[in-house]
Amino acid sequence: MSTSTTRATQILADPDVPLVRIVREFDAPPEKVFRAHVDPELVVQWLGPRAVTMQVEHFDARTGGSYRYVHTSGGEQYAFHGSFHEVRSPGVDVAGVIVQTFTFEGVPDGVALERLQLEDLGGGRTRLTGTSLVDSFADRDAMLASGMETGIHEGYERLDELLAG
Amino acid sequence: MSTSTTRATQILADPDVPLVRIVREFDAPPEKVFRAHVDPELVVQWLGPRAVTMQVEHFDARTGGSYRYVHTSGGEQYAFHGSFHEVRSPGVDVAGVIVQTFTFEGVPDGVALERLQLEDLGGGRTRLTGTSLVDSFADRDAMLASGMETGIHEGYERLDELLAG
Repeated sequence: MSTSTTRATQILADPDVPLVRIVREFDAPPEKVFRAHVDPELVVQWLGPRAVTMQVEHFDARTGGSYRYVHTSGGEQYAFHGSFHEVRSPGVDVAGVIVQTFTFEGVPDGVALERLQLEDLGGGRTRLTGTSLVDSFADRDAMLASGMETGIHEGYERLDELLAG
Repeated sequence: MSTSTTRATQILADPDVPLVRIVREFDAPPEKVFRAHVDPELVVQWLGPRAVTMQVEHFDARTGGSYRYVHTSGGEQYAFHGSFHEVRSPGVDVAGVIVQTFTFEGVPDGVALERLQLEDLGGGRTRLTGTSLVDSFADRDAMLASGMETGIHEGYERLDELLAG
């Protein structure tokens, strides 16, 4: 196990609204973490659990763009798509922000509104705060029970490795 | 007052999640109501209160598209933008669906996830159900208090007139 696995990812179910909040710190500056989220050649190297192969159909991470990708694992395919409401690069004293929609096509009428914020902690470090909002607590809790946590933990370990490379 | 103003628009604050639900019936088939939501030359004729002039910057109502428009009223300008997560035409036994994001640029970090569904009631009539989801009850209640209701009531009266024309 690499030392990167010791970094804590907080995954919290909000008590008041059907939202999941994720907080994670990275040993890389915001611009580098941002690039790993918007450049599809980088995204495919870390998004999702290790067992997954990711194929991007399109990934146009700009305000008004959209994406679709397919994860393959154990012969099964899982497709995801959404649109980018807003994509804002981090700058001096300005957090990077990505607001997007997200649908797992296995539940085609389900849709989450996701917000990612990248804050500069100084010293070449970044705090990522992600939220995922859905319209019912039942759907939120099903999302948490679906293996989402494994994908997030392993994905961020892979992102640590990519950022260190 | 025209007879169209007697049609009831229900605007309901959900008790459990920070969502507003709107229900309204129209004397036109789903395909026609759908077209009035996706064709910008029709949208500008009804969206918003009567006192408003609407200018479309772009309005690409397809899955993965985006929009931006400006309402002008009393010399003030109010801009709105978002992305289209999914746009699905109504068909035989299939509801029309538009899922989009929505930001009023006066509150640039606020964003709503909106879902519109158009169901065929038979006899050339349609039931519209719209939901607007945000991430806090305070923001949802501020949205309801902002004059949203006037815009919706008058907008749907204008849409009645457009559909009848």
